[in-house]
Amino acid sequence: MKLFTYFRSSAAYRVRIGLNLKRIDYEAEPIHLRRKEHEAVAFAAINPQRLVPALLVGPDVLTQSLAILEYLEETHPSPPLLPEDPLDRARVRAIAMSIACDIHPIDNMRVLNYLKDPLGQEQETVDQWYRHWIETGFAALERTLATDGKAGRFCHGDRPTLADVCLVPQVHNARRGNVDLTPYPAIVRIDEACRALPAFAEAAPDRQPDAEG
Amino acid sequence: MKLFTYFRSSAAYRVRIGLNLKRIDYEAEPIHLRRKEHEAVAFAAINPQRLVPALLVGPDVLTQSLAILEYLEETHPSPPLLPEDPLDRARVRAIAMSIACDIHPIDNMRVLNYLKDPLGQEQETVDQWYRHWIETGFAALERTLATDGKAGRFCHGDRPTLADVCLVPQVHNARRGNVDLTPYPAIVRIDEACRALPAFAEAAPDRQPDAEG
Repeated sequence: MKLFTYFRSSAAYRVRIGLNLKRIDYEAEPIHLRRKEHEAVAFAAINPQRLVPALLVGPDVLTQSLAILEYLEETHPSPPLLPEDPLDRARVRAIAMSIACDIHPIDNMRVLNYLKDPLGQEQETVDQWYRHWIETGFAALERTLATDGKAGRFCHGDRPTLADVCLVPQVHNARRGNVDLTPYPAIVRIDEACRALPAFAEAAPDRQPDAEG
Repeated sequence: MKLFTYFRSSAAYRVRIGLNLKRIDYEAEPIHLRRKEHEAVAFAAINPQRLVPALLVGPDVLTQSLAILEYLEETHPSPPLLPEDPLDRARVRAIAMSIACDIHPIDNMRVLNYLKDPLGQEQETVDQWYRHWIETGFAALERTLATDGKAGRFCHGDRPTLADVCLVPQVHNARRGNVDLTPYPAIVRIDEACRALPAFAEAAPDRQPDAEG
């Protein structure tokens, strides 16, 4: 498998964690977003959405990080990223999607760029926007993790799941955006437990071959 | 099952279609978003994210439309919303998520409201924003549907899937936002084929008990 990735893309970071957790070997093919390599015609032929990640499996191109992770779960079921019970699976997927749908896309680089041009917003306003959607999402997630009795060492019990795979890259972004994480002790605790695992640590942006300072 | 819904919520619209396709009886509990009923303390106790839809299954609350639909797929497998082959499932999920992650959340009411206050944008700028993210997403999706050889009467072959469940509500929103759909003939054709089915037609916003003009 070949993964089209960018060290700072948190959607690619999710897939890197998933591949590591499942011990699947892959080749990393960096696509430099700030140099706009994803807008090149050659990459659009691979992914018409012009987004990373994309995973090449033989002649097939898989896109959308959560669709890729569900594919990995179906084809490489061990170790599982989803629990067995359907209600538990729904909880894990809902946490994953509360990040992957309702935080990350609103803070994606192309949206931030649109706020600057054509909307003409100052960097400070864009930074507030970035923090606002993380804080809104994290407040709800913290309440779930702290009160529904299903979190353990990780978001769902004591094994990492798809929820953790989405959480850690989002916490990384929150730190880069100077979000005050004090109000989210459960999130901070789970993020630390995850990053202590090699599968998460080795997927981190600063450990990637295309990493920059 | 009880569905917390709002006639105009396109995420709730997805779940209504899924429930109808699977012929699952449910009770609709309208949450009026424009009257801010979702921000009430009582609803936050049901869903800390304060978003619809939420599905009550016995004592459990399921949130996030795609997590709910995956749960319905696992517990009510017939008729299926996903094909059998893992690569085909990945394609269907990727189409669904290209809408549910990369179009809809950026155009959600709470984001549009933030553009107006605190960002002070005029209605015309907000309308352009709304159309921009639909057009960006639809351009990529049209290319996939028109060129990868896997669409049939619907997004994936000749049976409706999770991809169609997400597409139809987004096309509905596009029409409300006066998006010119001429550049997307495959999307328009598939949307029409879907809406000819009672499961889609009966889930439409104007057919809901809480519908307004």
